[in-house]
Amino acid sequence: MHEHQDHIRRLKIAEGHLRGIQRMLEEDAYCMDVIQQINAVKASLNKINTSILDQHMKSCLTTAVRGDDADERERVLAEIVHLFEAVNKN
Amino acid sequence: MHEHQDHIRRLKIAEGHLRGIQRMLEEDAYCMDVIQQINAVKASLNKINTSILDQHMKSCLTTAVRGDDADERERVLAEIVHLFEAVNKN
Amino acid sequence: MHEHQDHIRRLKIAEGHLRGIQRMLEEDAYCMDVIQQINAVKASLNKINTSILDQHMKSCLTTAVRGDDADERERVLAEIVHLFEAVNKN
Amino acid sequence: MHEHQDHIRRLKIAEGHLRGIQRMLEEDAYCMDVIQQINAVKASLNKINTSILDQHMKSCLTTAVRGDDADERERVLAEIVHLFEAVNKN
Repeated sequence: MHEHQDHIRRLKIAEGHLRGIQRMLEEDAYCMDVIQQINAVKASLNKINTSILDQHMKSCLTTAVRGDDADERERVLAEIVHLFEAVNKN
Repeated sequence: MHEHQDHIRRLKIAEGHLRGIQRMLEEDAYCMDVIQQINAVKASLNKINTSILDQHMKSCLTTAVRGDDADERERVLAEIVHLFEAVNKN
Repeated sequence: MHEHQDHIRRLKIAEGHLRGIQRMLEEDAYCMDVIQQINAVKASLNKINTSILDQHMKSCLTTAVRGDDADERERVLAEIVHLFEAVNKN
Repeated sequence: MHEHQDHIRRLKIAEGHLRGIQRMLEEDAYCMDVIQQINAVKASLNKINTSILDQHMKSCLTTAVRGDDADERERVLAEIVHLFEAVNKN
């Protein structure tokens, strides 16, 4: 699927970024610069997650909510609330 | 509505908490204790938001997604993605 | 102290904001608008916390780190690490 | 340095985790499971950052604050406040 290809590509970039950060540590880079680079990786991961969620809402969630299985509907809606709860801790 | 009554009640408690924090500042409390109390208010606000979102998913969002207005459906789904994006910044 | 006066003033504004949100709920405002307003209050609280932390670093923390009490020094530094840990959960 | 070795080792594990997530996407795993795994990587990165910050406070920051260069002292303290601001956005 096209969108998955894009997510895989972006995860590969994040992976390369993490390797670069290991080199920074080996070369004794300044701590605060390392922390900032790790935060940059986290920002990329956030964007990937937002994009996956966007897809999920338009496909799986829409199908479930429009479907006749009340349990499945409830499950899919509760997942979103739990995700929100998990990422909204501070 | 019962649930709204509960949210209003919890917002009133958060309000009282903020007043208590003002007193702490007037009495020159230790900075880190003030920061911790402000974080406790934020934690209460997060719980209220999770509860409002839960309600929203089961009512407005479900109605929109099951409805025939494709624009409205899209709008309601995009709102959730934007909310996630906004609270998932770090 | 001048800075505390400013923090108290900003907490009072946040308090008024929370009262406004209670009115929104009483008047059955749209859920997503309520969530957004609660997030706006959280953003104000974050700014107050950043300002209190800034003061703390320049006063208490600097005094402790420059002082001769190694335990106190350690305690004050550990507090910052714990705060970072607490607010950096997602 | 021993601690850096540990951080490098944990970054390598996070890297492997990201590769596993790419496989999940290739095998069309359920979106919400992918999002959860990406959040698990973020949680590991947060722990690495907390540990680097802890080291930084005890070494560079302590040295700077105990030193005689007022500009350097101010710079190092401001960095912590900016970091807090950056990770405390929600």
